[in-house]
Amino acid sequence: MSVSSWSRGGGEEMCPYRLVLEHVTSRWGVLILIALAERSYRFSELRRAIGEVSRVSEKMLSQTLQTLERDGLVHRDAKPVIPPRVDYSLTDLGREAAEQVKALAAWTERRMDDVQQARREYDEARL
Amino acid sequence: MSVSSWSRGGGEEMCPYRLVLEHVTSRWGVLILIALAERSYRFSELRRAIGEVSRVSEKMLSQTLQTLERDGLVHRDAKPVIPPRVDYSLTDLGREAAEQVKALAAWTERRMDDVQQARREYDEARL
Repeated sequence: MSVSSWSRGGGEEMCPYRLVLEHVTSRWGVLILIALAERSYRFSELRRAIGEVSRVSEKMLSQTLQTLERDGLVHRDAKPVIPPRVDYSLTDLGREAAEQVKALAAWTERRMDDVQQARREYDEARL
Repeated sequence: MSVSSWSRGGGEEMCPYRLVLEHVTSRWGVLILIALAERSYRFSELRRAIGEVSRVSEKMLSQTLQTLERDGLVHRDAKPVIPPRVDYSLTDLGREAAEQVKALAAWTERRMDDVQQARREYDEARL
């Protein structure tokens, strides 16, 4: 894994997996994967759960879910009932992605004290 | 690790580690960590290496490096020579972050065929 291996001839078409990486590490991508790793959610529930962490518009959440669905990470289950009911869950592939993202998030949490210490030193050196 | 554990009372100040996660998973954050995991780079070299993957302005690269430096992930070494020479490398903490990000990138690469298959099926179902 090197930076140059990501270019592979130049254009974005030649490097599709960088785009997948951006999907799973996007702000909403991360939060959706972590939420759905717990259980399946209805759209409105998911919006509330994610909204506790970071405000998300209906449109943005819906677009991110669609992107993750197209990547094969999220399964969308629209039930033919009234009122309409749509459940979102992780596919097996999505579960793997969530594991990776959770490992990264857990590392961040574990190292937060070191990061905050570094920030204090950085800011003090520039006072 | 659950979504609700990220909110911890609401504001962004209460959840600083989500911001660190965003720094290391940002487009340029990922590419910088992967590049510096190989070796140290001068600014102009780093811009060229990352530019092979994705065009990056001098300002954006410089801001991202500064953010990662403040988080304690990147070490900036300005040598008092003429012409000025600035080398960037990873700290021990940055090396850990790079390992996490590389694991995620490697997973993405490994699963790319599955993702592309899912996309084909998604698009075909909507023709």
